[in-house]
Amino acid sequence: MKNQVLLIPGPTYVRPQTLRAQTGTLIGHRGQEYRNLHRRIVEQLRFFLNTKADIFILPSSASGCMEAAIRNGVKQNVLCLVNGAFSERWAEIAAMNGKKVDRLEIPLGKAPTPKLLKEKLQSKTYDAVTLVLSETSTGARAPIEKLAPIMKKYPKTLFCVDGVSITGGEPINVDEWGIDVFLFGTQKALALPPGIAFMSVSEKALEKAQTIKNRGFYFDFLTLKKAADKQQTPVTPPITLLYATIHQLDYILNQETLKKRFLRHAQMAKMVRDWGKNYFSLFTNKNYLVNTLTTFKTPSNFNTEHFLKICQNQGFELANGYGDLKNKTFRIGHMGDHSLETIKLMITTLTPLVENSLPQPL
Amino acid sequence: MKNQVLLIPGPTYVRPQTLRAQTGTLIGHRGQEYRNLHRRIVEQLRFFLNTKADIFILPSSASGCMEAAIRNGVKQNVLCLVNGAFSERWAEIAAMNGKKVDRLEIPLGKAPTPKLLKEKLQSKTYDAVTLVLSETSTGARAPIEKLAPIMKKYPKTLFCVDGVSITGGEPINVDEWGIDVFLFGTQKALALPPGIAFMSVSEKALEKAQTIKNRGFYFDFLTLKKAADKQQTPVTPPITLLYATIHQLDYILNQETLKKRFLRHAQMAKMVRDWGKNYFSLFTNKNYLVNTLTTFKTPSNFNTEHFLKICQNQGFELANGYGDLKNKTFRIGHMGDHSLETIKLMITTLTPLVENSLPQPL
Repeated sequence: MKNQVLLIPGPTYVRPQTLRAQTGTLIGHRGQEYRNLHRRIVEQLRFFLNTKADIFILPSSASGCMEAAIRNGVKQNVLCLVNGAFSERWAEIAAMNGKKVDRLEIPLGKAPTPKLLKEKLQSKTYDAVTLVLSETSTGARAPIEKLAPIMKKYPKTLFCVDGVSITGGEPINVDEWGIDVFLFGTQKALALPPGIAFMSVSEKALEKAQTIKNRGFYFDFLTLKKAADKQQTPVTPPITLLYATIHQLDYILNQETLKKRFLRHAQMAKMVRDWGKNYFSLFTNKNYLVNTLTTFKTPSNFNTEHFLKICQNQGFELANGYGDLKNKTFRIGHMGDHSLETIKLMITTLTPLVENSLPQPL
Repeated sequence: MKNQVLLIPGPTYVRPQTLRAQTGTLIGHRGQEYRNLHRRIVEQLRFFLNTKADIFILPSSASGCMEAAIRNGVKQNVLCLVNGAFSERWAEIAAMNGKKVDRLEIPLGKAPTPKLLKEKLQSKTYDAVTLVLSETSTGARAPIEKLAPIMKKYPKTLFCVDGVSITGGEPINVDEWGIDVFLFGTQKALALPPGIAFMSVSEKALEKAQTIKNRGFYFDFLTLKKAADKQQTPVTPPITLLYATIHQLDYILNQETLKKRFLRHAQMAKMVRDWGKNYFSLFTNKNYLVNTLTTFKTPSNFNTEHFLKICQNQGFELANGYGDLKNKTFRIGHMGDHSLETIKLMITTLTPLVENSLPQPL
């Protein structure tokens, strides 16, 4: 509900200053003033992602960028690393676009390992591999530092990575990790309103796109590239959301600094887990925890829905488990611009609620 | 530039109240509060468009909806009625999605006639016909009242209509005109910030989609329909833009009223033309003038770019001609929430500028 503390894994709390940045008066999107705005956003995102690659600004959600990666990067075969609802969505998107999809299925709460990836890549030649770096349905973070060296041994295969629920909360090293397509939205750890997505696209990915037919228009890399070279978008961009974006990027990079932001995310994650582990077990394997959200497993006789309802009554909106995990888990999104004080207040508020909701020992 | 009077054919002036409506705090998009918002927007848009059809809310520009119409509505053959840059874009989008495109080419500034449409439809069976109701590059409004009866004789052919630069400025009768897909954005005569698009989709179009493969995910009618039935979107919607949307729809329907809004657009169009005709000729054929924008033809020895620059210096941003019409025409967007007073002020301000810019008679 409005005016609740929004601790779901996105959309999340947006600072009033960022909300107000949306109220700038409109400008034409073919003039110099827009181009300056576009250029500054791209420059700051490059810094954010540690990349020199092209950055495209898309009026879409991040799922649109998933479709873009498929239509531009996959001629025939794609390997999708699937460990939850959003990585499964990427596989479905590939199939819905007529591509041949192999899934490397990993149990929920875990992440793909270098060994499994290596085996798959040895067995067949793929146009692209899709990886969700932080699977929002479980909070499992893939060990990309170990997967990247494997991918580098297959330079003809594009490495496509979804960074939706991690970008802004942990360091991202697009070039070091050899990522060809890195995509993310704005309403998670960047603490912006939803409605825009960004993607970095490597030269290799652009070259690959040239060899692929039927890429469409809206998500076509070459159309996007042509416009981006003029600091524009092919279609009308969401200008007021871009006002908020530049405001927030300036704030993150120059006021808070990335270092402090990442530290705060690590601290929020630790606080939530240190507290929650008194009552619940972590659903996600401890080797694969992302700093932006936590999934707790609830006991079989715990009424998850009722618990979330009473949290909401006390002003805190948490999220139920996603898909099959509904009512078996719940999720806390500790991302974006939430403060340690907010997390402390959540803990103080929720502790008696949890203790009253848990089944009493006999 | 910011804080100019934006008289380009979109994005256009957005009232401060509408800009501020974007600053509502974020909510989750899977909860009841979002569903209520979604339902209200859909209901009001149905009233706006005079339709009982499904309405989809898309986090994209209207060009995305053009791609949606093609991927869902065209198995093989599409007839594109082309009389300017945006109707040509629809044809290109169809080709980029691997469809067979026939163009019915009409000179710039004119509109397709019933006779020409009839001939084309008799010559071949088409999955769909695309029509841009108001071609933003020229301000030519198609005589849809006369085209619709022709289309109705070909009930297997979907009638897809782009209403981008007219919706909110003139009456739209989706059901009466037998339109299967009607699409539009928000930054034109609706006077909203850009970043969302809406489309009405008929039952016939939904049935057709079921017969078509490779529709993709992001713009898939059936995926959109499944979510819309739950008052949701398949992906995260641009929530703050939807706050502005409901605010503006409430304002238009309940405060200003559609009747007065359409009258004001007719009055703005008349004022602009009565004034401009003293100096320039209308580029667009007088039988096909839309009430939301005007394209004036400039004399061959008139420096259009310089003229637009000095208008800008005086606080009024007009638009140059689009594409091939650049420097041969200029456009005034008199749409959205501009008042008659603003148009009067533009006329008072621009009159001496025009008179000084026009070549002196010998």
